[in-house]
Amino acid sequence: MSTPIIFDTDPGVDDAQAIAIALRHPDIELLGMTTTFGNVDIETATHNALLLGEIAGQPVPVAQGSACPMVKPRHPAPKHIHGDNGLGNITLPEVKGQADARSAAQFIVDTVRQRPGEVSLVAVGPLGNLAAALQLDPEITRLVKQVVIMGGSIREGGNVTPVAEANIFNDAHAAQRVLTADWPLTLVGLDVTHRCILTPEHMARIEAGQGELGKILAGSYDFYRAFYREALGIDGCCPHDSVALAWLLRPDLFETTRGHLGVVTEGPAEGQTILAPEGRGFIADRWSQTPVVNVCMGVDGKAVSDWIADTLA
Amino acid sequence: MSTPIIFDTDPGVDDAQAIAIALRHPDIELLGMTTTFGNVDIETATHNALLLGEIAGQPVPVAQGSACPMVKPRHPAPKHIHGDNGLGNITLPEVKGQADARSAAQFIVDTVRQRPGEVSLVAVGPLGNLAAALQLDPEITRLVKQVVIMGGSIREGGNVTPVAEANIFNDAHAAQRVLTADWPLTLVGLDVTHRCILTPEHMARIEAGQGELGKILAGSYDFYRAFYREALGIDGCCPHDSVALAWLLRPDLFETTRGHLGVVTEGPAEGQTILAPEGRGFIADRWSQTPVVNVCMGVDGKAVSDWIADTLA
Repeated sequence: MSTPIIFDTDPGVDDAQAIAIALRHPDIELLGMTTTFGNVDIETATHNALLLGEIAGQPVPVAQGSACPMVKPRHPAPKHIHGDNGLGNITLPEVKGQADARSAAQFIVDTVRQRPGEVSLVAVGPLGNLAAALQLDPEITRLVKQVVIMGGSIREGGNVTPVAEANIFNDAHAAQRVLTADWPLTLVGLDVTHRCILTPEHMARIEAGQGELGKILAGSYDFYRAFYREALGIDGCCPHDSVALAWLLRPDLFETTRGHLGVVTEGPAEGQTILAPEGRGFIADRWSQTPVVNVCMGVDGKAVSDWIADTLA
Repeated sequence: MSTPIIFDTDPGVDDAQAIAIALRHPDIELLGMTTTFGNVDIETATHNALLLGEIAGQPVPVAQGSACPMVKPRHPAPKHIHGDNGLGNITLPEVKGQADARSAAQFIVDTVRQRPGEVSLVAVGPLGNLAAALQLDPEITRLVKQVVIMGGSIREGGNVTPVAEANIFNDAHAAQRVLTADWPLTLVGLDVTHRCILTPEHMARIEAGQGELGKILAGSYDFYRAFYREALGIDGCCPHDSVALAWLLRPDLFETTRGHLGVVTEGPAEGQTILAPEGRGFIADRWSQTPVVNVCMGVDGKAVSDWIADTLA
């Protein structure tokens, strides 16, 4: 049975891998992509989303969204991780198509309204588009099938600050809005994505299996891999955004817990996700007043990485 | 070789266990106790510190300190954990002696100045007394041998909020001052104390070995154990404060990491300790500008619990 999704993305090397999965997996119906600043600026994000669909021979609607955070100035794009063009500075072909005329938020609202109860939102960048959609139409919380967020960290520590993960840090106010919106939500954060390593052997299989798309995935992976080797001493990379899709189709590979989430928007812990486990008492109620959601805390990392490669090989 | 210490404490059931170790262990020279609000109010803390020394037949100087946090109003004492009298509501004998005329902070300064380079400060409550000592005499950072703090949590989550440990939460401003004071410091937090369980079998050995003092430790333990059973589903208790003394004498039982600490003083993460590992880069330098300290991240919990029981049996 196919799962209809909107993929909200800031491609980005690991986004590109996930977009390939969303395009190729027989159990995913990719209704469209919505773009946000994050790993790259908004124009680059939209360009890359259009390009990847075209190269795959599956152009899907792409609706452009947030160019910056809801409240604060934006942080510079991490060009040392994803390259100037978001795809590891490899040479890219021309884009033929163009973006949908609607904003990302309007595209989300329209698409969810067209198929009530059916659409899963999978968001793997800063969460401004989902927050904007909630502002246009708060009722979508009851009309989506589920929301899967790649972002945050509960016990793992952060990747841009000691406690904050990049997607949440890049728009903490949007994240606070989205993670507490009272819709069926699962957080797929560093607690699980740091357990998954996409190895050079995995990528060789993907390159062999995906033609021209495979060349882009493998070329951008090489750049991303150099960052992981230098900064973290890992040979390979964490396929963060693909892990959100693994959760969507293979939740059996994950351990989850249920609890109340909140996001720190100010101070030295800015961008941190705080989880109050369901039923656990603390010194005050303030941490337990947001809706209960699912949070991924454990994963069979090798099985997820193998699933990614198997999907694209 | 004996290690001279000042023990800064808010007794408290697990404090009482640690005080017994500080009094009985042949390798510790207990120069005095300084008291703070925390598990109990300040008068109760001073009473219990005096009482435990007297019952052990080893009255040591007790200097009373902070009755409340440096900046904010205090939170109520956790009477459901330590009892109204801090020792599980067991009947206690009369105290004969009285506190030193000096404040806790002055006692710390005077004692450190008397034996430069020799004195270890072991603090197992909110950190107002150490912060006040630094304000009286900032030079003590160069005159202490080391500072061992039971408090905080890096990866383990909190015990009074989802991210904050009680001692740090109870005076986050004092903790920020003390943890960033540039003295040789080790943080012994929930990452290790939650790995240690003092079992009823351990306590039976302690009761048998410590005469009248053993009766107080065992009686208060029974009350504390009921909290652990109901709130956490553990049969036994975490001997938090004794673990700081275990680090002092048996660092071989611990795994530590080095990094920069900071404390969140406002917002939903208030009281959280943030660790930026030494040498790790983040999006800005702000997390890496405090002095480098030691943080306990792993422990042989059974060995520490056995060491506590062996010390007192």
